[in-house]
Order: sequence, then structure tokens, then C-alpha cells
Amino acid sequence: MKTAASAPTNATTGGHSAPALTSDAVAHALQVSLRGCDELLPREEWVTKLQRSEASGVPLRIKLGLDPTAPDIHLGHTVVLNKLRQMQDLGHTVIFLIGDFTSMIGDPSGRNSTRPPLTREQIEANANTYYEQASRVLDPARTEVRYNSEWCDPLGARGMIQLASRYTVARMMERDDFSKRFKEGRSISVHEFLYPLMQGYDSVALESDLELGGTDQKFNLLVGRQLQAEYGQEPQCILTMPLLEGLDGVDKMSKSKNNYIGISEAPNTMFAKVLSISDELMWRWFTLLSFKSLDDIAALQAEVADGRNPKDAKVLLAREITTRFHSVAATDAAEQDFANRSKGGVPDELPEVSLAGAPMGIGALLKAAGLAPSTSEASRLIDGGGVRVDSGVVSDKALKLQPGVYVVQVGKRKFARVTLSA
Amino acid sequence: MKTAASAPTNATTGGHSAPALTSDAVAHALQVSLRGCDELLPREEWVTKLQRSEASGVPLRIKLGLDPTAPDIHLGHTVVLNKLRQMQDLGHTVIFLIGDFTSMIGDPSGRNSTRPPLTREQIEANANTYYEQASRVLDPARTEVRYNSEWCDPLGARGMIQLASRYTVARMMERDDFSKRFKEGRSISVHEFLYPLMQGYDSVALESDLELGGTDQKFNLLVGRQLQAEYGQEPQCILTMPLLEGLDGVDKMSKSKNNYIGISEAPNTMFAKVLSISDELMWRWFTLLSFKSLDDIAALQAEVADGRNPKDAKVLLAREITTRFHSVAATDAAEQDFANRSKGGVPDELPEVSLAGAPMGIGALLKAAGLAPSTSEASRLIDGGGVRVDSGVVSDKALKLQPGVYVVQVGKRKFARVTLSA
Repeated sequence: MKTAASAPTNATTGGHSAPALTSDAVAHALQVSLRGCDELLPREEWVTKLQRSEASGVPLRIKLGLDPTAPDIHLGHTVVLNKLRQMQDLGHTVIFLIGDFTSMIGDPSGRNSTRPPLTREQIEANANTYYEQASRVLDPARTEVRYNSEWCDPLGARGMIQLASRYTVARMMERDDFSKRFKEGRSISVHEFLYPLMQGYDSVALESDLELGGTDQKFNLLVGRQLQAEYGQEPQCILTMPLLEGLDGVDKMSKSKNNYIGISEAPNTMFAKVLSISDELMWRWFTLLSFKSLDDIAALQAEVADGRNPKDAKVLLAREITTRFHSVAATDAAEQDFANRSKGGVPDELPEVSLAGAPMGIGALLKAAGLAPSTSEASRLIDGGGVRVDSGVVSDKALKLQPGVYVVQVGKRKFARVTLSA
Repeated sequence: MKTAASAPTNATTGGHSAPALTSDAVAHALQVSLRGCDELLPREEWVTKLQRSEASGVPLRIKLGLDPTAPDIHLGHTVVLNKLRQMQDLGHTVIFLIGDFTSMIGDPSGRNSTRPPLTREQIEANANTYYEQASRVLDPARTEVRYNSEWCDPLGARGMIQLASRYTVARMMERDDFSKRFKEGRSISVHEFLYPLMQGYDSVALESDLELGGTDQKFNLLVGRQLQAEYGQEPQCILTMPLLEGLDGVDKMSKSKNNYIGISEAPNTMFAKVLSISDELMWRWFTLLSFKSLDDIAALQAEVADGRNPKDAKVLLAREITTRFHSVAATDAAEQDFANRSKGGVPDELPEVSLAGAPMGIGALLKAAGLAPSTSEASRLIDGGGVRVDSGVVSDKALKLQPGVYVVQVGKRKFARVTLSA
């Protein structure tokens, strides 16, 4: 395992052949590991693993467990994927672990209707969708895809009991949500104690060296570590990444908050959404989403502090992110499109609207195309000179349009390509 | 299902064909159920089950779970077996459930060396030994022997999780020993939560109507009841029997306290041990161990209160218990043997002792045969006239015995048949 930039090992010269405590390569790998992370535990064990891998050339095994219930990835999910990619670039192996076993069980109490059990086919379809998306970040050549039913099913009822014997109730109660619910008298089903154990057993089965997760996963990641020790294995280290703030800079990125950028979104949308974030959030996103070196980012930050327009930096970030999921050409076009919009030009991609009823008054058309909330508001917009048809400002509120295709614009940002028929 | 003494049903005469709330037969069955029991819960549900069985002729299913690790039965274990036999005499079916599944797991944490896993062969040997002993109390024609691996193994890891989803941690923590250990910071392994669930699932698999156990089993029996409701079954009732006090009348009967009567002990020993208990304990044992009716016992008690020798009652109890496990002839002989001993006669069965070193002084012989703690104490016993050889009192402390067989007696109760060689 060599990094592209690996320097000669700083071996001690006192006659010992043991590697130095930290070679340049190991120091670099540690720095890459730590970037943007919330916690890396225990750091000294991770250094030892990195050293051993550096000396032996055997890649480390880095686990990411995935719940194949929600296959749509947004940028928030890529924070962890990015870290995995950085580890792959250091030569290590990523295990993309599909938690199909528990997904096929769903919420067995049947009380949570949002977690119905998934069929084998649904799981594989979801896992494929997820992997297809994740592989835009990950290096497929250094990724191992596994399903945990491979070892969970053969455990059987006896194996489950033996597994459960390796962990205490008191330790389980240390998990924040369990202790909180227990104290508040809210129900915890016994099987909820089994899920972290199954997840931890995955680390045993995979002989994982490092497990990644969000900060909210810390407890579960530690269970894997503890179970490996119980099963006589060298325990994995754990690395937690912070949860990414969404477009609003306040809440964590999530679909339900509608403050997200899906990695399958169109390049123009993706680019424009990145440009919409605050300058403060931009620097946070640079740390967690960019692959630029920390030095490069610091230099950029210094330039902005020195008076360079922060929008320049935001464009760099938007280009990097958009290029990760789309072609360079598409990114160029998205940048151009964004510039056009900013100057009031017509964007490349417009919402298509088909309307019947020509000839149609401009006010009714604006309303029907969703460009104005009402015809009276449409009149007001025309009075203000904010309505264009095919780039020409409309001044006649009584204008009637014949069948045809029109680019209709309201203000700087609202556009539609209207196909009007009789 | 009819009892021998079933009386005509007290049906209501108002034109309804529904059975009366309690027929004589049901009232009798309830009385039999309640005799000596600690708790019968919920009583009204049990009455409903008895009524239904009485009306339909379908026997109720009565479960006894057994841990096949300790196959030696003493009278303490028969308290529950007796109750089962009484239920069989009412026409019901007893399920003699061997908990082989969990026994084959043992203590999976490996921390408890006294609970190693048992092999299939050991379990079957233990279960056979146990059943052979229990069938001296139970009616084999109304006994179903089952092993819970029949349904526990097919559960698989998924089934275990689904089972665990049916019960809450809070409810589990209501078990006294769990809450106590948790509060005191003593370790509880997660698998200990699974064992009561497995046991409860046995009730689901067996569609049990009633489960019996010692008072210390109440929590586990209730789990079965709750799980049956979760699985959409009519829940079982539970019946707990008190733990029997041992020969000392203080501690519960147990092998480790050496205050027990094993059901495989020789008739003479069994008879004599019953005779050794206190009068107070005797009445307790009558309730829990005798099959005499409560009326007959009350009559006997009245006679004793009126001046009859309580030993007469004790002999009746000793005869009943000894006859349960041995022949009437053996019981007669045991009674005779006990009478002989009481009169100072030589008992039928003597400890056999073989000694070499004839001719041997009587003092050394008494010590070597374990009849005196020391030769000086032997001399004292001879001086007191308490030593006999072949029924003759020994007065000569210097007596030397030649090779031969001698019945040697010290005081009223200590005997040995000594075979003395040169």
C-alpha cells in the first residue's frame, strides 16, 4: 500500500529494522484520516494499523454499513463516502456492506408502518441504486460489496443467543437514546438491543480495521469494536464524520427538510444550489465535500480575506461538486447557465408547460403556467415591466397569444417554455 | 374430561343451554388446582378454561418446563409433579417439556463453568432419567414429552429477532433479579433477556393452557402468558407452588443443604427420614406431598389435637410417600425396620465394613469402622455399656476379635457389619 506521494520511510538508524513511529506516508495517511472528522478512536491504534499496512503492503479493511431502505443519496451522505474514497486513494479496501438481513425483518413489532420488511428483490434493487450512486465517489476497484445475510442467517437462533451473551445490558443502556427512553418510560423492545449486536458482528465477520459512520453512529461503531475483542480479534478503530448542514446552513441536510442536493440532480440545479449557500457554510462544505488539500483551501480562504470575491471560491466548489457527478462539459454549461440567469438571460433548461385555449390572454397564461399566483398579480407584474415573452418586455396587459411556443419570463429567475394550443 | 366424582352440572334452568358458572365438577377441579398452591392467576380465566373443557370434553394442556441439567429428583421437585398428577386425574394432559435447546447452549459467555453446554446424548440421558423418575408420580398415558429444540431451532436468527420484538426492556427489568442486579451494577448479559422469551415461546408453540412452576418462576411463567397474547393466542394461566421445606424444616429442600429425600433412595431410608421431621413440618408435607383429601387430613389433625400420637400420622405419611416410589411390601419392611431400630433391634440393612489386621482390639475396630471418633472415646462408650457385638454388650475394653463377620452396634442407631480379616 503506497500513496502516490509516499516519501521514504523515516526508519530509525540505530540498527533496528522496525519502522519509525510515523513515516511521512503514515503521517500523511493520518492527516487524511483526520480531516473534517468528528472523532477517530483510538488514534494510537489507528497509527499502528497504518504503520503495519505501510510496512506489509496489506491494505486495511474499512467498513461502511448501509441500510438499503432509502436508496437516494444526497451530498450529506457523500461526506462519509468522500472519506472512504480518500482512504482508497491511500491504498485501502472499502467494504460496502448492505444490511440486508435486518432490512428483510423490518420493524418486527409491526408498530412502525414506515419500516415494512423489504423483499430480497427490493433490497437488491435499492442496493444497486445506492451502489451505482456511491460509485461516483468510490473507486470500484478498491470496493468490496457484501450483504450481511451471508453470516447473519447461518448464526441461527443459537448463534444469536451466543452473540447476545457477549454484551451486557448495562453497556447497551449507555446508548443515549436507550437510556433516555428508559428513563422517560418510553418503550424499548428487546430486539432493539439485538440490532447493534448484529451490526457489530458484521465487523467480526469482515475482520474490519476501521468503521466509518456519522456521529450519531458512534455507539454502534463501538459495539463492533467491543465484539471483535470478545471474539479474539484485533478491534477496529472507529471514525465518525459530522453530519453536513443543508442549504439553509442550519439544519442537517435531509430530504424531509428540502435543504438537500441529490447527487442525481441535473448539473444546472446542482451548480445553482451550491452557489446559493452562505459564505460561512461554503468553507464548511470545502472541508467536508472538496478533495482539495487543506493547504489549497487555506490559501483560497486567505485570498478571500484579502478581498477576493467569495463567489469565486463558491464557483470553484460548485464546479468540483458538479464535475464529480456529471461531465466537465455539463459543468461548464451549468456555470454558463448560472451566469446567464444572473444577467437575466434565458437559462438552458426551462420547465416545459403545455396549455390549451389559444388565443389566451397574457394574465391567464402567466397564472396557468404557474408564473403568477393570480391574474391580478400577473397584471401588477406586467405594470412593473417584469414580464417578457421571447425576451421582449410585455407592456400590454390585454395581449393575447396565438398557438405557438413561447419562452415566458417573470422577473430574473422564473421561466417557462409554454407550448400553447387551441 | 370427567372426574370420577363429577356430579350433574348445575345448569341454569332459565331456558339457556350455557353451562352454569361453576358445575360441581368445575368447583372440584378448581379446589384441586388451588390446594397448596402459592398463586393461580388469573383465577377467573382458569375457571373459564375448566368450564370449557368440562363442556367440550377436550383436555386442557398443562406445561411443565424442565432443565435437563440435574436429573436427580427429590421430594421437593415432586410438589409440582404431584399437582400435575392431580390435574391428570381430572382428565387433563401434561406436557413434560425438556428445555434441550438452551441446555445445549449452556452459559455462552463461558464465564459460568458450572453451566457447560450439554451434548445431545447427555441431554437425552438426563431427560430419560428425569422422566423415569417423574413417571413414578405422573400418569404416562396423559403425559406428552416434548423437546423445545423442535421449534426453537427453526426460529433462526430472524425468528429470534422477531420474538425479541414482542417484549420490552422495561418489562424484562421488572424481574426481581434483573432489576436488583442492574441497580447494584452487577452484570446482566443481553442473552439473559432472551432465555425467558424462549421459555415463553414454548407456551406459544405448545398452546399451553396452564404452566406450573415454583414461586421463583412466576416472572418467567408470565412471559409465556404475555407472548401468547402477542401471538394472538388465548393466554395460559399460571400456577405456582411453594418450595418445600427440607428435613430440617428451615431451609428449602436441596441436595446442597443435605436436607432432602431423593425419590430413588432406599425404602428404609425414605421411611426413616420422613419419620425424622417435626410434627409441624409434617402437616405442611401432608398438604404438599400427600394425595389424601383435605378433609381426611383435617380429620387426622383433629384426632392428633384430641390426643392421638402424632407419630401415627407421620407413619401414614411415610407409608404413602414410600409406597409412591417403592412396593407396598418394601414399605411394610421399611416400617418394620424402623420399629426394630426404635426398639434397639438390628436393622435389615447395615453399612458393610471390611477391615484387615485381626486379631484387633475392640477400641481400634470401633474407630476403624467409623463407629467411634477415637479409641479413647471407644473406651468411654464401652464403659457406658453402649457397645454390642452380635447383640452382646461388650464390657471388656481389652477384647480382641479374631477374623470373622460381626454386627457391631454403638448406642441405639449406629450399626456396621464388619468383615475382619488377618
